Amino acid sequence: MFRLIIASIAMLLAATPALADQLIDNVDGIRIDEHGAIDRFNGLWIDNDGRIKAVLHRGDKRPANVTYAIDEKGKVMMPGIIDAHTHVMDVGLAAMTLDLSDTKSLDDALAKITAFAKANPARPWILGRGWSQTRWQLNGFPTAAQLDSAVSDRPIWLESADGHAGWANSVAMQAAGVKPGMSNPKDGRIVRIGKSIIPSGVFVDSAMKLIERVVPKPRPAEQDLAFGNAQDIFLSNGVTAVTDMGTTIEDWQAYRRAGDAGRLKLRIMAYADGPDAMDLIAGSGPTPWLYNDRLRLGGVELKLDGVLGLHSAWLKQPYADNPKINGARLLSASQLRNIMVRASLGHFQVAINAVGDAANADALDAVAEVAQSFSGDLRWRIEQAQIVDPADIPKFGRNGIVASMQPLQEPSDHALAEARLGPERIAGAYAWHDIAATGAHLAFGSNAPGESVDPFAGIAAAITRTNADGEPFGGWQPQQRVSFEQAFAAYTSGGAHAGFAEGRFGKLVSGELADFLIVDRDPTMASPSQLRSLRVLETWIGGERAYQAP
Amino acid sequence: MFRLIIASIAMLLAATPALADQLIDNVDGIRIDEHGAIDRFNGLWIDNDGRIKAVLHRGDKRPANVTYAIDEKGKVMMPGIIDAHTHVMDVGLAAMTLDLSDTKSLDDALAKITAFAKANPARPWILGRGWSQTRWQLNGFPTAAQLDSAVSDRPIWLESADGHAGWANSVAMQAAGVKPGMSNPKDGRIVRIGKSIIPSGVFVDSAMKLIERVVPKPRPAEQDLAFGNAQDIFLSNGVTAVTDMGTTIEDWQAYRRAGDAGRLKLRIMAYADGPDAMDLIAGSGPTPWLYNDRLRLGGVELKLDGVLGLHSAWLKQPYADNPKINGARLLSASQLRNIMVRASLGHFQVAINAVGDAANADALDAVAEVAQSFSGDLRWRIEQAQIVDPADIPKFGRNGIVASMQPLQEPSDHALAEARLGPERIAGAYAWHDIAATGAHLAFGSNAPGESVDPFAGIAAAITRTNADGEPFGGWQPQQRVSFEQAFAAYTSGGAHAGFAEGRFGKLVSGELADFLIVDRDPTMASPSQLRSLRVLETWIGGERAYQAP
Repeated sequence: MFRLIIASIAMLLAATPALADQLIDNVDGIRIDEHGAIDRFNGLWIDNDGRIKAVLHRGDKRPANVTYAIDEKGKVMMPGIIDAHTHVMDVGLAAMTLDLSDTKSLDDALAKITAFAKANPARPWILGRGWSQTRWQLNGFPTAAQLDSAVSDRPIWLESADGHAGWANSVAMQAAGVKPGMSNPKDGRIVRIGKSIIPSGVFVDSAMKLIERVVPKPRPAEQDLAFGNAQDIFLSNGVTAVTDMGTTIEDWQAYRRAGDAGRLKLRIMAYADGPDAMDLIAGSGPTPWLYNDRLRLGGVELKLDGVLGLHSAWLKQPYADNPKINGARLLSASQLRNIMVRASLGHFQVAINAVGDAANADALDAVAEVAQSFSGDLRWRIEQAQIVDPADIPKFGRNGIVASMQPLQEPSDHALAEARLGPERIAGAYAWHDIAATGAHLAFGSNAPGESVDPFAGIAAAITRTNADGEPFGGWQPQQRVSFEQAFAAYTSGGAHAGFAEGRFGKLVSGELADFLIVDRDPTMASPSQLRSLRVLETWIGGERAYQAP
Repeated sequence: MFRLIIASIAMLLAATPALADQLIDNVDGIRIDEHGAIDRFNGLWIDNDGRIKAVLHRGDKRPANVTYAIDEKGKVMMPGIIDAHTHVMDVGLAAMTLDLSDTKSLDDALAKITAFAKANPARPWILGRGWSQTRWQLNGFPTAAQLDSAVSDRPIWLESADGHAGWANSVAMQAAGVKPGMSNPKDGRIVRIGKSIIPSGVFVDSAMKLIERVVPKPRPAEQDLAFGNAQDIFLSNGVTAVTDMGTTIEDWQAYRRAGDAGRLKLRIMAYADGPDAMDLIAGSGPTPWLYNDRLRLGGVELKLDGVLGLHSAWLKQPYADNPKINGARLLSASQLRNIMVRASLGHFQVAINAVGDAANADALDAVAEVAQSFSGDLRWRIEQAQIVDPADIPKFGRNGIVASMQPLQEPSDHALAEARLGPERIAGAYAWHDIAATGAHLAFGSNAPGESVDPFAGIAAAITRTNADGEPFGGWQPQQRVSFEQAFAAYTSGGAHAGFAEGRFGKLVSGELADFLIVDRDPTMASPSQLRSLRVLETWIGGERAYQAP
């Protein structure tokens, strides 16, 4: 009998997963407790399935017979970061193309473009992103002629930092069949040379498609490579879960390939790129959580307007620096509400991307209207919420709205926002504190690759309203700062709540998956500049080490 | 210590799947042995994972302690059928729309259409399929005016039995903006009234798209329903695995939804609808076997020509009954070979759909050429192979070609084929015996919904060359009959081999998944008409009962 039992155990053990009980002990652990305060702990007991069996405090009895025990020798442990708004595949593809986001001037950029073209002679197109006429302090957009001076033998196509404009050289325009006098497409603009009919080389919003349609699409092997790159970038930055905003079927297939092949480590909460992608990806309702809570399509992103940089954010009143226009409304009132109703009928979550004050007002009103017909916890998401009329801010506190905001946008864009809006309307810009004070659910993210993936830089910006150089001194509109605890929660449990993932991950509590970081300093004790240089030593997902610093 | 062990066993057992060892005993089992002969057995011992532990013959010792033992009381067990060429979603959608495949005349059809429209007043479009001007013995195609006499308040769109033509009423043509004098699209034809420029209501091949683009696409909920219907139809016919030819991304997503939700029982070996769908569905190589060997995209279907009924099968010489044309070649020599090379580089399998003798000759030549550059077991598939120049038949025996043929097409189409080809060229029509004799790997399928799903009717046709009424007496070109054993193998292990699934299922041998049927008579002893009325009592997949006759 005893022999039989031993044999049975051996047989059964062979069928169980490779994981086993683990004790990560002697850590300097921090997490947020149920009152929003920092709780300190010392050990994590993880079960066979990668879930937390117990969070151990000093003096708690340790389990006797765990399979693996690791002594972290006092290192700092914290929950894995959840990036509540990013674009996973773009992060990966950006890492494979020319990155101009660190260029300070047009000359700087042209030198970098020339060098990249020389270093990559086999690429039929030079692709890249990250330029900004504002950062370069240009008087308007750069031109095709300037790009031609760097590379004239091959087409070049470079997206702006905000992703709402593209810059082509003459070969690219020729390849795309762009001609003088061509009319602007709906919701887009071909920038012209002076007052002429001649395209200057920059294409805004939907006009970008004129060039994009001739840019060779990434092949599946490149997509897989891009996904691997993106995953590495997130993991090395301490991000264990992301919200992928605007997921296409191609993106989704890359995630599934990674999942099917066992290469998917990062958790991805996906929101489809509009209702057609939602139908195609998920069918008549959200997908289940797939691959041990690593992938789910739970909702749809609806882009209601454009961006400030291109005067396409939809404002209540005309732009201060362009009084003829008040931006682009990308969905009519009835289109928005119809899609919201249709999504909600299928139990899909709706994430409305709203930048300008008119877009935010309409999003908030639409939520109030549609929420009347649907009971239950729908967690309407408003993404970006960059410029909000202070009169509308209280509406964030109603109907369980999630305000999904990106702290790094404030230091990057506040000067631009002031130029676009003037002194009056700027009061409701990046209004983290006031929006949080309404009781809205705050979730913080990066908007990468538009901004850096680094969540610790994001926390530093959230608590200081300064940039990496600590400017402006004292912070821009410092009354909108949030506390460290608020920022920490918005980058962890807030992101989980925003994606209906509470109870699965985000808090480091018993029963949740063991997604945590080992970092090189205690972020609760760190100065803003120390936060910005904090190093992630290890990233663990579901009780497995997914990244270790070299 | 002992208590701990018991506790451990309980814990580990809780984590193991619900299945346990099973013994299905006292069966009258038949399978094909390694020499192609019938082997009889009496019991099946199935392990925890749904795999065959042992096939038991009379006198073999039975295992002592299996969890479940079923006494089948002498019922007939056989391997599950593998349908090597079908269209899963179309089978399901066809079951939800108007089926005209049993209509004997135009009047018969019009009466059925009128009744269907009355019974479905809420449907904005009346959709259906299965008409045949040949079966109805018309002098040419039916017309929109005839359809209008049945239904004129709503658009109607009815596909032909072979799927290569559609028949619209006037409202449908109006909705699609079809106008007199409209020119024929490439690779398609708008049938006209007499010698006029006025569309008659029938649209051939690519011209079908003129109407299809305005037909509302099935919503995901309808796709899921259609897949469920299709699965039920296959399972109740004893089909445990299918080859889905021409899988689109929408089809694939429906299969994945079923898999993710645990609704996928049928095994699906999918071949993408061209290279773009292949890239999008699978990426840079075949997908893994998913959901316990229930789904895989392993290759791509390339349609090289059309069909005999519409004079679009590509022939070496002009049609006997239309000497001006010799059909439609849908891929140029270089297109076909380029796609074959590209697919093979990604280790995708290529399935060339070839109907006419020119198409088969080109497919065979292309295989011979491309195979020179690729070593290894590529299993080039030629689908249909309806009309082959006898001079080309020996080429099927080279390069490991799989001839994927559909026995029920012969009784349906041989009269049509004789009319199209005349007496000389008909010698190589549906030449199962001669193609098998070359050493080609035979795989049989249904081509459903174009033909019935029923594999036993297919076996009956394969061994008799007669239709359901036993006509023509003695069989049409009876020298092309195959033996029962050949047909049985082509519907089981042949289909598994064709999809690189050997060793996984198809043979009822140890180590393979336990996919089997319990049927109401012994097919090896049955007359052709008894085969056609054989009833499937139970269908088991992976050791689980997936269907039981009511």
